[in-house]
Amino acid sequence: MPVVVRNTPRTDLEIVDGLAAAGVATVHEAQGRTGLLRPDIRPIFRPARIAGNALTCEVAPGDNWSIHVAVEQAQLGDILVATPTSACDDGYVGDLLAGSLLAQGVRGVVIDAGVRDVAALTEMGFPVWSKVISARGTVKETPGNVQTPIVCGGVYVRPGDVVVADDDGVVVVPREEAATVLKAAQEREANEAAKRTRLNAGELGLDIYNMRDRLADKGLRYVDYMESQ
Amino acid sequence: MPVVVRNTPRTDLEIVDGLAAAGVATVHEAQGRTGLLRPDIRPIFRPARIAGNALTCEVAPGDNWSIHVAVEQAQLGDILVATPTSACDDGYVGDLLAGSLLAQGVRGVVIDAGVRDVAALTEMGFPVWSKVISARGTVKETPGNVQTPIVCGGVYVRPGDVVVADDDGVVVVPREEAATVLKAAQEREANEAAKRTRLNAGELGLDIYNMRDRLADKGLRYVDYMESQ
Amino acid sequence: MPVVVRNTPRTDLEIVDGLAAAGVATVHEAQGRTGLLRPDIRPIFRPARIAGNALTCEVAPGDNWSIHVAVEQAQLGDILVATPTSACDDGYVGDLLAGSLLAQGVRGVVIDAGVRDVAALTEMGFPVWSKVISARGTVKETPGNVQTPIVCGGVYVRPGDVVVADDDGVVVVPREEAATVLKAAQEREANEAAKRTRLNAGELGLDIYNMRDRLADKGLRYVDYMESQ
Amino acid sequence: MPVVVRNTPRTDLEIVDGLAAAGVATVHEAQGRTGLLRPDIRPIFRPARIAGNALTCEVAPGDNWSIHVAVEQAQLGDILVATPTSACDDGYVGDLLAGSLLAQGVRGVVIDAGVRDVAALTEMGFPVWSKVISARGTVKETPGNVQTPIVCGGVYVRPGDVVVADDDGVVVVPREEAATVLKAAQEREANEAAKRTRLNAGELGLDIYNMRDRLADKGLRYVDYMESQ
Amino acid sequence: MPVVVRNTPRTDLEIVDGLAAAGVATVHEAQGRTGLLRPDIRPIFRPARIAGNALTCEVAPGDNWSIHVAVEQAQLGDILVATPTSACDDGYVGDLLAGSLLAQGVRGVVIDAGVRDVAALTEMGFPVWSKVISARGTVKETPGNVQTPIVCGGVYVRPGDVVVADDDGVVVVPREEAATVLKAAQEREANEAAKRTRLNAGELGLDIYNMRDRLADKGLRYVDYMESQ
Amino acid sequence: MPVVVRNTPRTDLEIVDGLAAAGVATVHEAQGRTGLLRPDIRPIFRPARIAGNALTCEVAPGDNWSIHVAVEQAQLGDILVATPTSACDDGYVGDLLAGSLLAQGVRGVVIDAGVRDVAALTEMGFPVWSKVISARGTVKETPGNVQTPIVCGGVYVRPGDVVVADDDGVVVVPREEAATVLKAAQEREANEAAKRTRLNAGELGLDIYNMRDRLADKGLRYVDYMESQ
Repeated sequence: MPVVVRNTPRTDLEIVDGLAAAGVATVHEAQGRTGLLRPDIRPIFRPARIAGNALTCEVAPGDNWSIHVAVEQAQLGDILVATPTSACDDGYVGDLLAGSLLAQGVRGVVIDAGVRDVAALTEMGFPVWSKVISARGTVKETPGNVQTPIVCGGVYVRPGDVVVADDDGVVVVPREEAATVLKAAQEREANEAAKRTRLNAGELGLDIYNMRDRLADKGLRYVDYMESQ
Repeated sequence: MPVVVRNTPRTDLEIVDGLAAAGVATVHEAQGRTGLLRPDIRPIFRPARIAGNALTCEVAPGDNWSIHVAVEQAQLGDILVATPTSACDDGYVGDLLAGSLLAQGVRGVVIDAGVRDVAALTEMGFPVWSKVISARGTVKETPGNVQTPIVCGGVYVRPGDVVVADDDGVVVVPREEAATVLKAAQEREANEAAKRTRLNAGELGLDIYNMRDRLADKGLRYVDYMESQ
Repeated sequence: MPVVVRNTPRTDLEIVDGLAAAGVATVHEAQGRTGLLRPDIRPIFRPARIAGNALTCEVAPGDNWSIHVAVEQAQLGDILVATPTSACDDGYVGDLLAGSLLAQGVRGVVIDAGVRDVAALTEMGFPVWSKVISARGTVKETPGNVQTPIVCGGVYVRPGDVVVADDDGVVVVPREEAATVLKAAQEREANEAAKRTRLNAGELGLDIYNMRDRLADKGLRYVDYMESQ
Repeated sequence: MPVVVRNTPRTDLEIVDGLAAAGVATVHEAQGRTGLLRPDIRPIFRPARIAGNALTCEVAPGDNWSIHVAVEQAQLGDILVATPTSACDDGYVGDLLAGSLLAQGVRGVVIDAGVRDVAALTEMGFPVWSKVISARGTVKETPGNVQTPIVCGGVYVRPGDVVVADDDGVVVVPREEAATVLKAAQEREANEAAKRTRLNAGELGLDIYNMRDRLADKGLRYVDYMESQ
Repeated sequence: MPVVVRNTPRTDLEIVDGLAAAGVATVHEAQGRTGLLRPDIRPIFRPARIAGNALTCEVAPGDNWSIHVAVEQAQLGDILVATPTSACDDGYVGDLLAGSLLAQGVRGVVIDAGVRDVAALTEMGFPVWSKVISARGTVKETPGNVQTPIVCGGVYVRPGDVVVADDDGVVVVPREEAATVLKAAQEREANEAAKRTRLNAGELGLDIYNMRDRLADKGLRYVDYMESQ
Repeated sequence: MPVVVRNTPRTDLEIVDGLAAAGVATVHEAQGRTGLLRPDIRPIFRPARIAGNALTCEVAPGDNWSIHVAVEQAQLGDILVATPTSACDDGYVGDLLAGSLLAQGVRGVVIDAGVRDVAALTEMGFPVWSKVISARGTVKETPGNVQTPIVCGGVYVRPGDVVVADDDGVVVVPREEAATVLKAAQEREANEAAKRTRLNAGELGLDIYNMRDRLADKGLRYVDYMESQ
């Protein structure tokens, strides 16, 4: 029987917003290259960059009923994360639901299925990351779980985990690790800034990262084209 | 032997234009969630929204000869709907054919295959919905049927059926039903406008659509997070 | 053991730039419809159009080490062409590597794998054609060959072959044929310009290309709709 | 509203059985290379070869209710042809439904979706051609049309059209053309038998089909390897 | 940093073996249609049916090092469940590893990646469910987690959860629910046996399941073919 | 213009047969994990294992004419390796062509496209590795190159390179390296036999390969389940 879990924990929005600023690639590196959704979950417009607390939702194939249930559980700063119980490309979210989510403070949607009304959503500036764009409407016959742990885009997501989404994709940070990951992300950014300056000035990564000896150990050889023919 | 059917019926352009105004998602709902092409048939630029009479065309794999034949059958307000006899990603339509179609009054192309010269087509504002973008050229050795019923993107399309295409995809309306579907679409739009206002103001779909009792009947339960751990 | 080949031949940049001006569709036709990469290798932003000498690079799955090695071999006017030894969607190139490549005079990247930091790359105007966008980072454990012949997107590419990339995709021109292909491409363009004018004026391809007799020979028949029902 | 059409026409089983004997490749050639379903519709066991009258059925995503409705419309010699209204990989048919279909005289199933209990179906010798094998069960909430024209595997199928299915895939023959196609298929088989004997004896297709002159006209040249290097 | 968790809980093998006897389709229904892996995870030979305790393992792309680490953690009745940290088709397991796993009492492998030496594995009768068959070998440079919770084929799996795999695919049963699910599965089987007998005897599901009234409520109409034309 | 290259070099059949005995996985390891075709090129029946000299052939989409041309160039011990100039799933080879190839001494076919008549081919024992099985027939309008270098399944293949194909897939060995690779493969096999015995007896790869220290260097930690909760 489907269940809705109320009063789930959430991550402090200050941490959430810090993770948004760091961006998906940096956050995913900062937590040991984990938590990335499958790369076919793509934004409907670019550029876009948000972070929020996961508001999780399971939907039946071709049936978006539980998203209506989820809206009531939304809080300011949430991102709806929805996954179908079996693969489905239908357009689960359109401009009506987007307007409703927006009115409850939801910042965007991540869905391992389809979305529609993308012209309107783009005009509204309401960002959605989805597997597909499809006008196909859905029925309301089979409710699913809301605010329970789910797997979306190949990643395990619990209510209140932090979802960061930008042009590169979507990453999930477990809520217990959010503060630590934010700190690591900010350090990583500082570290990269220095390297960026040197690389842009023409220095080689081979030298900056001291790679030459280790490459030689791996057996890398340099030959001249004329001699190799 | 391939055949070209002349003097096929068409739908009145006033109805066609009304369907364009309604858009793909609304039209497809208005005719009972039918007629949508596979969602991998995507526009080459966004936003785009057109409707027109289907000018149908079968092409051999890697061979666009019959599109040249189809151009002669075009009338003002048509949309070329082309499908290969077996799956093919080649670029069947480029800027030369687009210019030729435009000169005959064709409003755009829907093709279950590839298109090329997309930079030029975008600059011309000539919209194409295709499965893929590919520079691959085609030969002219094997003509196919023109203005016969075809299957495109998984949907049966006859000459003169109405094709509506926008950022959400493509839908086909049988010509006999076009007027009825238009009326249903317009009613649906009016109905949605009222709901949009309420949802945007923060009312819940659960209440607007009276879903709570029916969800309880389906067994939906609410539990508290702390108790569920 | 991995190898880096130095002092590989390159194509004169005047020819390279001529091929860029002609564009992918024209170049591929001019060399007999050969050399096109699979159409799922797509630009991260549009419009984009470049040509350059192939700077080739093999990468291990999930490992971008050899791209750092390749940077040192870059010359003004190169395009990095990278291919994984087995299919991989990870983000091999990000803004740091892009800045480094740019500093060495590289014009863009073609990769049969993933790219990340696409918002930054778009802002920089650094074009990349890739199979996928993914934030997934890579390790540096297994170097691969640099400046050896590779297969990328289904096409055989040698260092110094000309790579032309635009909104339609990517084509490779063998360096020995580059001058000849450029000439053929320019002739083709001139020829197409005349036809474009006639087609845009409403003349039919059936007449311009003298197709009617040959279509009849192939058995094409014209029937009237009312008689065919 | 969903509809069940009763007393649909069927093709004589003598013709149907003749088409089964000819097999899919021959039948599809005999009707001008038309009517083949997408090749990802595959048999769950091999070898298998059947033909029957199409008993058509639309199903909602994740919902097999209308197949139960279709069973009542079955007649001896039918093949159930089912298609979801949007793409779905769920296991719509299992051993219970197969037993029920078999009891009504149905010879097999062709479905543009999933099937389950394949070990049992294989043991029963009940052949199914499907897009996928999946244990995923379905609900019974949304009935679909039965015995109306549908598109399955990209092909338009009407009740009583002949479905031929074997290890090579599935082909549909319009019922009006079934007798003609059978005759053409049998002629084709006779013709091929003679050629098979000659080819197996070592004669070349180049000679049997008189291809040499036409190939020369197309510009085919023979060169020697040593001279071409 | 990668971690190996020792002394993880396991499910009693009597329960595990009961679930194997029930099979994947029945088990997945018995736990509310949950826990099924994506259907592209397929057995390398058929028929095959096993169940076991999940021995979980994360692998880097193109790198099977952690499977060697996992072997040491194996116990009699385990099934190795392996997932790459990003999508990879390489052949992570071959006959050497299979022999090693078998020697430790492992019953089979479920992997969201590739397998090789399938001829030898088939001869050994060692069952593997994989996404692909590939001879591509892997390196040993980057260890991953062993016996931690993972996502495999879109499903969350913890060490000691029960994995049931047969010709229909793979399902995971949380260890806390295994006994309950087994009971439900056995009841379901008993219930189905009675229905199977009636369906095989020609009774209709419409009658057995009392569907006629509910279908009428949903608006299902019966029409005669002649009248519908 | 298409060309047929005659009198191309071939590899000695004794070496070829030695490579067949070693099998695809071993041969690909023995040449440094190179030369493997994409894993979606699969055998139509299993088990199957052959090796032969590549008889290369390019085909136009939906057009198998050049295969007829290639048959004349065949010699005892060849394997036909065919690739379409753009992706195509049609059934290029059927039982007639297979009989003709067999009569010329050809051992099998590797094709990055479709094959048909698989029931007959299976009965004949004529092995084919293909991307798809499709009954779709082809035309004879556009000849392609025969016995020129091609890319098949993502791998560069020249006439007379050795093709090894078995249940794991297909690998190509450059003819200049065939003798060296055979020797390395045989050494690898001998080496593996000893390890197989130890692994099957229950020794751990961790010990046989001395992995423990290096894993510790990589940071692998062992923790107890109870402490990790």
